[in-house]
Amino acid sequence: MTKDDALFQFLLRMGDNTLILGHRVSEWCGHSPVLEEDIALANTALDMIGQTQLWLGLAGEVEGNGRSADDLAFLRDAWDFRNVLLTELPNGDFGQTLMRQFLFDAFQSVMLNWLQDSSNTRIAEIAEKASKEVSYHLERSGDTVIGLGDGTEESHAKMQAALDYLWPYVGEMFDGDAVDAVLAKEGIAPDPAELRPEFDAIVGAVLAEATLTVPDSPFVHKGGRDGRMHTEHLGHLLTQMQWLQRAYPGATW
Amino acid sequence: MTKDDALFQFLLRMGDNTLILGHRVSEWCGHSPVLEEDIALANTALDMIGQTQLWLGLAGEVEGNGRSADDLAFLRDAWDFRNVLLTELPNGDFGQTLMRQFLFDAFQSVMLNWLQDSSNTRIAEIAEKASKEVSYHLERSGDTVIGLGDGTEESHAKMQAALDYLWPYVGEMFDGDAVDAVLAKEGIAPDPAELRPEFDAIVGAVLAEATLTVPDSPFVHKGGRDGRMHTEHLGHLLTQMQWLQRAYPGATW
Repeated sequence: MTKDDALFQFLLRMGDNTLILGHRVSEWCGHSPVLEEDIALANTALDMIGQTQLWLGLAGEVEGNGRSADDLAFLRDAWDFRNVLLTELPNGDFGQTLMRQFLFDAFQSVMLNWLQDSSNTRIAEIAEKASKEVSYHLERSGDTVIGLGDGTEESHAKMQAALDYLWPYVGEMFDGDAVDAVLAKEGIAPDPAELRPEFDAIVGAVLAEATLTVPDSPFVHKGGRDGRMHTEHLGHLLTQMQWLQRAYPGATW
Repeated sequence: MTKDDALFQFLLRMGDNTLILGHRVSEWCGHSPVLEEDIALANTALDMIGQTQLWLGLAGEVEGNGRSADDLAFLRDAWDFRNVLLTELPNGDFGQTLMRQFLFDAFQSVMLNWLQDSSNTRIAEIAEKASKEVSYHLERSGDTVIGLGDGTEESHAKMQAALDYLWPYVGEMFDGDAVDAVLAKEGIAPDPAELRPEFDAIVGAVLAEATLTVPDSPFVHKGGRDGRMHTEHLGHLLTQMQWLQRAYPGATW
């Protein structure tokens, strides 16, 4: 694998994570339990779509075939997506959405923290910009996990159920492969396994305060970040997300 | 409006009803409560898709622009569909699906009965073929409505709720307009209002045996058969139904 091949894959992973999760979160628009949360979720989704533009824009440049961020977002099929499975899971209830967001935000914050010192200055710049937004997302999703986890009996039970459901998808984010090895050697991106202790510290502190228990099952769902196997949910998401560009090819604002 | 314009619209109405309801029913495939019902629903869906092929095939011929049944099914957007709203409503639970099927089957059986004597021989032929399938659908959905309506307290309550939800969509099937007037004059298709007494007789007998009560609200949801206003459900259905032809234009077996 050449460095550019690895770099392209890495940028797809970064961009697809924020694209797919951003789209998922946007599904809440107009449906949240209270107005404040509706706006907060829509803003979070917008931040992620904005970051997508940067990651996939750079991916298109690195690939060198003239594909824009929009082309990559709207004209690839499921098997070409490189997002981790966590990001494509259904929203479930509000608590499950926020638990998923918290787990992703915690990962993303330690990843972006590392990438700000990437030897690739373009990546470092994007990471620095995105990092500011993600710190805020993490603060917000963490606070909500604590508020609902350490809330009523019902909200606690729902958050524990969400954590039990989502936890087996956490491991994939730290499951490095040849792509990561090539980039780690060049100081471009980390071996994701190295990020795990910092993630565990952040997540452990919040979940403890939320009075929630990390499941001790070692099972890990994988297959998204290397495109080997996505869940059935991704295809359904793409039919809706890509509808306009598929039905009206080349449509612009 | 020319006769051919009216005929095209009428054929779209017939074909879109069976296409959209057929697609909806196919969503049950692999998810029904028991294997027997799963297979029965899949067969019903297939019959309706088969009828669609005939109606939309003839529609394409009448239009004369070279559009095939597939083109009409997969390459029109929501505003060009002419199905009644009843057919695009979500499946809900098994009982709701069967109640929707029963109401449509009852309409379709009296419509096809009339159309077998249409002055347009192509239409009469399609009606004769489809009629055999629909008699069986009606018998089956009617029996299920009776079995569940006059069943346990819980199944009765669910069927009554389904009827209450679906009944306001019944009126649209009999709501004639200029298209119908043009065709009725030529003996090609009926003024649908004339079909209502026979429909009411069929439906009334089954619902009475099912111990269900017809809601006495006069409200009628309209807008599907003239394409003025579909529900939000149609767009979501189309994103999934049309995905393949939109993503891979011209794909064939």
